[in-house]
Amino acid sequence: MLITFEGIDGCGKSTQIRLLEQWLRENNIHFSLFREPGGTNLSETIRSMLLNSGVDMNPVTELLLFSAARSQLISEKVKPLLEEGRVVILDRFYDSTTAYQGYGRNSAALDQIEALNKLAGHNLVPDITFYLKIELEEAERRTRNDFKDRMEKSGREFFQKVIDGFDRISKNNPRFQILDATLPPDMIHNQVREFLKTFL
Amino acid sequence: MLITFEGIDGCGKSTQIRLLEQWLRENNIHFSLFREPGGTNLSETIRSMLLNSGVDMNPVTELLLFSAARSQLISEKVKPLLEEGRVVILDRFYDSTTAYQGYGRNSAALDQIEALNKLAGHNLVPDITFYLKIELEEAERRTRNDFKDRMEKSGREFFQKVIDGFDRISKNNPRFQILDATLPPDMIHNQVREFLKTFL
Repeated sequence: MLITFEGIDGCGKSTQIRLLEQWLRENNIHFSLFREPGGTNLSETIRSMLLNSGVDMNPVTELLLFSAARSQLISEKVKPLLEEGRVVILDRFYDSTTAYQGYGRNSAALDQIEALNKLAGHNLVPDITFYLKIELEEAERRTRNDFKDRMEKSGREFFQKVIDGFDRISKNNPRFQILDATLPPDMIHNQVREFLKTFL
Repeated sequence: MLITFEGIDGCGKSTQIRLLEQWLRENNIHFSLFREPGGTNLSETIRSMLLNSGVDMNPVTELLLFSAARSQLISEKVKPLLEEGRVVILDRFYDSTTAYQGYGRNSAALDQIEALNKLAGHNLVPDITFYLKIELEEAERRTRNDFKDRMEKSGREFFQKVIDGFDRISKNNPRFQILDATLPPDMIHNQVREFLKTFL
């Protein structure tokens, strides 16, 4: 079973993943958690290239590097674990590429990004995707004192397009559970648990 | 003007590029030469990931990393130089991806590789592509004492498929000049010059 979490920085993804980890442990459910980009030696090297703000990177290069990091993580770690019957949680998956590189940067046409997502995702589709929906102003308020990496320095207009992208791809897609990220974390976590109980 | 050289290791690409450089210098023709993967800081970092034989890399990851390195080289260096009117020589371009990752590894369907080549090549098409055609046995004889990187360790069956791939894509494509790589280097160089004289 593959569970993914999506949303812009400041939406509370990390908090929700931590609460989910706790709950899975308490219920003796074995799971593996990976963050994108990352999760293998190769993918972590690519991650540091992607987030290094000293680099002037072309948008197509960015799209291809995120995809390369994903391909290695999925083939080396995620697929074998899912085949063993393990629950895998991903902190971001290809929906982030559609939202950030597709809607946000216009790196390539959306149908080409979809084809690339399938290729780099080795045809995996999440069983459930939690999208933590938040307004840009609220996310900015929450992250205003954080250190910003190259992606996070992309500006307001970019992040508004990313939010619009997430809204678009999550709408009318039964795989998505849209969560109101402004609710208290415990309340959101209860919703996550309710959704997962029907699966696990 | 964009000139590319293609062929498997041992075909004599480097020798021909060196002879062409000499000739261009003697004729006061300004040019820039890049090798793929490489040519920018980011692309050289990707190159070392690709050629490092300690890494167990998924074929899709390999395809995407070659493409990412290409995207950065073309956008950062090659396109601006061509726009200034400079002659650019590439030691490999996307035809290598079609031959090595497409025909050699079957990393993805050929039409998807073509779409990826367009994307990563930022829609550039070489004005002329010299394909140095050589049999596998002869190439092996020439490189048998060389140090082998990760790509070069891919085995005979792989390289035969790469050769078949180059033969396929160069056939009936007017951009390609197929050169008999078993001829003496000076004779091949004369052919290269003859072809280029009509362009330069």
